[in-house]
Amino acid sequence: MADIDPSAFGARAESMIHILGSVSAEPKRLVRRFLSPEHRRAADIVASWMQEEGLSVSEDALGTVRGHWPGSGAMRLLIGSHIDTVVDAGMFDGPFGVIAGILAAGHFARAKNRLPFGIDVLAFGDEEGSRFPATLASSTACAGIFNMASLDLADRDGETLAQAIAHYGKSVADIPAAAYPRDQAAAYVEVHIEQGPVLEHRNQPLGVVTSIAGQTYLNVELFGEAGHAGTVPMLLRRDALAGAAEIILLAEKLARDSKGDVVATVGHLDITAKASNVVAGHVVLIADIRSGSESARAQFVERFKTEMRAIAERRYLGLLVTTTREVPTTPCDPRLQEGFAAALGGQPVKLASGAGHDGTAMAKLCPIGMLFVRCRGGISHNPAEYASPADMGLAVAALIRFIEGFKP
Amino acid sequence: MADIDPSAFGARAESMIHILGSVSAEPKRLVRRFLSPEHRRAADIVASWMQEEGLSVSEDALGTVRGHWPGSGAMRLLIGSHIDTVVDAGMFDGPFGVIAGILAAGHFARAKNRLPFGIDVLAFGDEEGSRFPATLASSTACAGIFNMASLDLADRDGETLAQAIAHYGKSVADIPAAAYPRDQAAAYVEVHIEQGPVLEHRNQPLGVVTSIAGQTYLNVELFGEAGHAGTVPMLLRRDALAGAAEIILLAEKLARDSKGDVVATVGHLDITAKASNVVAGHVVLIADIRSGSESARAQFVERFKTEMRAIAERRYLGLLVTTTREVPTTPCDPRLQEGFAAALGGQPVKLASGAGHDGTAMAKLCPIGMLFVRCRGGISHNPAEYASPADMGLAVAALIRFIEGFKP
Repeated sequence: MADIDPSAFGARAESMIHILGSVSAEPKRLVRRFLSPEHRRAADIVASWMQEEGLSVSEDALGTVRGHWPGSGAMRLLIGSHIDTVVDAGMFDGPFGVIAGILAAGHFARAKNRLPFGIDVLAFGDEEGSRFPATLASSTACAGIFNMASLDLADRDGETLAQAIAHYGKSVADIPAAAYPRDQAAAYVEVHIEQGPVLEHRNQPLGVVTSIAGQTYLNVELFGEAGHAGTVPMLLRRDALAGAAEIILLAEKLARDSKGDVVATVGHLDITAKASNVVAGHVVLIADIRSGSESARAQFVERFKTEMRAIAERRYLGLLVTTTREVPTTPCDPRLQEGFAAALGGQPVKLASGAGHDGTAMAKLCPIGMLFVRCRGGISHNPAEYASPADMGLAVAALIRFIEGFKP
Repeated sequence: MADIDPSAFGARAESMIHILGSVSAEPKRLVRRFLSPEHRRAADIVASWMQEEGLSVSEDALGTVRGHWPGSGAMRLLIGSHIDTVVDAGMFDGPFGVIAGILAAGHFARAKNRLPFGIDVLAFGDEEGSRFPATLASSTACAGIFNMASLDLADRDGETLAQAIAHYGKSVADIPAAAYPRDQAAAYVEVHIEQGPVLEHRNQPLGVVTSIAGQTYLNVELFGEAGHAGTVPMLLRRDALAGAAEIILLAEKLARDSKGDVVATVGHLDITAKASNVVAGHVVLIADIRSGSESARAQFVERFKTEMRAIAERRYLGLLVTTTREVPTTPCDPRLQEGFAAALGGQPVKLASGAGHDGTAMAKLCPIGMLFVRCRGGISHNPAEYASPADMGLAVAALIRFIEGFKP
């Protein structure tokens, strides 16, 4: 068996991160949306790396790149992450998990080391949902739970997911074939930057994920009355944006009051017929609510809805709240957690993931596990996102040891 | 002299309002931006009406349509308003003033009634500022105070004002010639819907304007830190949108506390790299602050800036506040106010205008006066904007009586 040299893996990972990080729709910031020309270029780079490592490459109907190293048995260990990004993204969120999978699988393939199980490295393309008003199209297809209704969803240019798939050179008819047979998928594991500050505060490079937080997305629509900014007296106004401002601060206050149980964010807000000299008559915002605890999230949502209603009534605003996403907490498999803990040695940090991941979908197919890598300042979804080559090298080495110890 | 029949004028005005109201860039809402194809179509309709009434028509370098009825002397009474609109506008704000001017001037022209002064009816095209980040280009040109630096301002498609003027078939070189000689401009008067609720509450169709409120526009930029909505703990966030929400509510509170002296509105807000799952790192909003009192507005702005600074410091946000517009209160000329009061008879309602008008620019050229017309619910900048044919007819009749009594 080949030696494991974490620092060599770290250097290779860093170089690969920068290559993918240069593939963007815009020159000055990183933007790589699902099924875009940039997705195509990134997928081609990933495929070429898989081939260099000795994996056989295929691509499914949603553009997921798959690198396969066969085993002596029919079962496969799936290792994946995503290559799409948010707008103005960092380079590590997603790509590092794909790179770690390629380097770890390559470790066995280059040595012609056949294991009792095959390895599939998966590069998904729709984890961030930055193109269509839905997410995880790629991993739900692999898990056999793709929502065919989502094919009609349109991006901001009016192109539907079905049209985007066709433009990408794929066929909607092939989506069912993207699903893994249940008796073939032994487990799904993913290496990912933490995107939070816990490992940095604990001074540990790696940590074992216990669960992926549940999420509720509320689409909040406020109906006031548009009016002239100079002539409508303050007390006669029904200002939808002022109501939205109260709701933004309400979400923040309730989340702070939960003392760490819940995080809530309003990051999206639109004013219809926006103009500086017009009192806003209609505003839409999205509240993103997450928790590792199902009951804490449910309690938050109930109280948030009640207090939003009170704000709207006091301001004579119409209020329409629609739950557009409801994802339960996804536990990581205890046996896979033990496998990662054994690969790390000692008493590794265990932590929940506040972010959603493709594992949420893959958990419908097979047990899932995740390994987190420390990132600087806990910063993610931001160009300042950073994980050190040393930490990335340790993560690849830990993934290799996990694979060595894995039993389907 | 021809008889004055208010109801006939009202019926004609209503028909003309609906004709102009159908000229829009969009099928389902009224949008008529400065120097757009819709502006061209509206200007052509206005010119044809002027010709039918017996006025001689010309157009200046900013697209202002001018209908002239000559007098026996060199002085001219200027009567104007604007034909551009906000986005999703009502039909009356601007167009009714132009229509009232055409019908009143036509009253004298059709009767071949030469007065001691000429009449110029002006249809301006840039009162709302809904295309370029500036306003009153048309009326400042007529007043001889056009800001040549504004030619470089770009609209949302990147077209500059200079380019838009050329596309409209005009020449920047002709802008100086648009200015009226000071010894020719006797006065500027404008009829306009009130855009507020005062006349309706007083049960009066018409009112005499005492002044146009002063305005301060503050461009407020907040710098926080973008971050992942699931992983950054609430207490570590520097959320620019939550800071903006506090500022929106602060503006509202301070304006309410002024008990009618000041109105303040945030109607424009942009989140950079907006995404529902990203803590906002950068937000820009515009605060529109107006008052009939110079000191009340100055005090508001000072206190608003101080308290915004406190919000930013408490939230560890960067704050950049830029004053992008500063318009002093424009008083209406006492002699012209008396002229309108005499035309109305009795003890007319006198009120300040909370909205800005082309008169703000024209006051740099000559004395100005304004007549307000009751509008339903005080609603403006909204498709529900409405003035009755009866009230519009009374306004045209009052304007004619004002002209009959006018002495240059």
